[in-house]
Amino acid sequence: MKLMAFRMGKDIQLGILSEDLIVNLHAVEREYKKHHSSGSSLPSDLKQLIEQSDAILPYIEELIKFANDGSGANYSLPVSQVEILPPVSNPEKLICVGLNYLDHCKETGLEPPSSPVIFSKYANAIIGEKAAIEIPVNSNQVDYEAELAIVIGKEAKHVSEEEAEEYIFGYTIMNDISARDQQFADGQWSRGKSADTFAPIGPVIVTKDEVGDPHRLDISLTLNGQIMQESNTENLIFNVSQIVSYLSQSMTLRPGDIIATGTPPGVGMGRDPQVWLKDGDNLSVSIEKIGTLTNPVKKATSKNKGGRKESAASL
Amino acid sequence: MKLMAFRMGKDIQLGILSEDLIVNLHAVEREYKKHHSSGSSLPSDLKQLIEQSDAILPYIEELIKFANDGSGANYSLPVSQVEILPPVSNPEKLICVGLNYLDHCKETGLEPPSSPVIFSKYANAIIGEKAAIEIPVNSNQVDYEAELAIVIGKEAKHVSEEEAEEYIFGYTIMNDISARDQQFADGQWSRGKSADTFAPIGPVIVTKDEVGDPHRLDISLTLNGQIMQESNTENLIFNVSQIVSYLSQSMTLRPGDIIATGTPPGVGMGRDPQVWLKDGDNLSVSIEKIGTLTNPVKKATSKNKGGRKESAASL
Repeated sequence: MKLMAFRMGKDIQLGILSEDLIVNLHAVEREYKKHHSSGSSLPSDLKQLIEQSDAILPYIEELIKFANDGSGANYSLPVSQVEILPPVSNPEKLICVGLNYLDHCKETGLEPPSSPVIFSKYANAIIGEKAAIEIPVNSNQVDYEAELAIVIGKEAKHVSEEEAEEYIFGYTIMNDISARDQQFADGQWSRGKSADTFAPIGPVIVTKDEVGDPHRLDISLTLNGQIMQESNTENLIFNVSQIVSYLSQSMTLRPGDIIATGTPPGVGMGRDPQVWLKDGDNLSVSIEKIGTLTNPVKKATSKNKGGRKESAASL
Repeated sequence: MKLMAFRMGKDIQLGILSEDLIVNLHAVEREYKKHHSSGSSLPSDLKQLIEQSDAILPYIEELIKFANDGSGANYSLPVSQVEILPPVSNPEKLICVGLNYLDHCKETGLEPPSSPVIFSKYANAIIGEKAAIEIPVNSNQVDYEAELAIVIGKEAKHVSEEEAEEYIFGYTIMNDISARDQQFADGQWSRGKSADTFAPIGPVIVTKDEVGDPHRLDISLTLNGQIMQESNTENLIFNVSQIVSYLSQSMTLRPGDIIATGTPPGVGMGRDPQVWLKDGDNLSVSIEKIGTLTNPVKKATSKNKGGRKESAASL
């Protein structure tokens, strides 16, 4: 199941993506409730849906069955007609794993780590499909990183690698945008990784049953149509279960938490000559079984009081 | 005004601290509404109060006036009788500034920075007054750090140092607990700084008008009654306005965001012999005009699925 959040008018709606069509779950529910009494109700965002997934996923199956069989009405609309929102805009934690593909370690000149390298982004950085990545006024070296991201489904603390999969809800795509000049001048990466718009996420969250083995997925990134990164998640140094277990030894992971698993080789800083993002660029990250996340790039101005809201408005 | 959140039974209540008494604002409001029609209502937590502060702070003044003059009833209760909650448990960002007192740089053996060193904690780490700091199963070098913390009041992007103060709501205390072994083995500090219970915050948020100049506050920390850190915020390398302005060049700061400003000398790792926290210890951080934040220390077990909930339950 490919879950998404989108905006129609002022309202946030939840939908299921199937090819190029979205089934608007809230529209189905309005019709469904005319014919059935149900104790369930769709929550207003995907984070709540994930928190209540044991009860809500069967209800969504029921809604889909109703939409397909029952009413004869059409609840689908073309994905091109809506503003897609980030699947989760307010996770408690947006955690990143660095240096998790061997060949990417080589291009950065850093040693492959003996345990996962953990760093942070904040939710202010999150934007959705087609929202603009803004080059901040204080950086000249903004770079891209295609990443498979884990979405946590259940509260997890001190879970083993064997148990870890139970705590995963599904997967999405993240483009881990980085101001390299700040990242390396600061030493600590938080600032250079957390500027507004530096965490494009989506367009969908795919439930784990539909993804199957998360370590057999082609992953690639194009810049203005040219392939810059191309690998497969089989090349992850620390796999998904190891990452979830490792983090849960320190932190309670919560439903809706997002963990980006690291990027394969081909980033702009590792090229000769180096490639930095510029106004007018267009980035697409594709991961097999999940989809494609596309974002334009624009130069921010100091008068732009920007961030998430302005990015959404500028679509 | 010293604002706090506390629990009575199952309900979260907001209060004003005055000496050792809390005025229960929700109790005042119930009585007030019997006598007055008011369009205002107290929000359910301090983050919402901060978001709506332009409207709510005058309403609170009105409630206090009513409590003092109007009804003859007693809305106060001893602070010792309630469970104090973290003032904000779900900030979008909990941002830390490292190495921001000159003498602390010396004791860590690190150079004083030329710009603020920014690192992150996540909200899973937040606990309130009297909740236990847990030594995680995967660290033997857990340390304390007394810090003045800024609470953001208004959305801030690209603000100047001169404007910065307008965007501050008030101040609180944070004890920046750190697993030094993880912090330095990892290089990136996120994991070693974000274990569950590693961010005691509170007990109150003091509005900026009541604090006055934030750079003239005595700050100290005691471990089992013995003074370990003792300084004054006049020794900050980067002051409050510089920090807010600097961060806002990258990130949109939002109401309820918390920014810890760094710790003075005297941390456990800088001592000879080094001092690490152990089960049964007791830590108190005091900052002039704000108050004292006290937390016991206990050793976690691997069976402890712990974190915030268990800490609250163990009071």
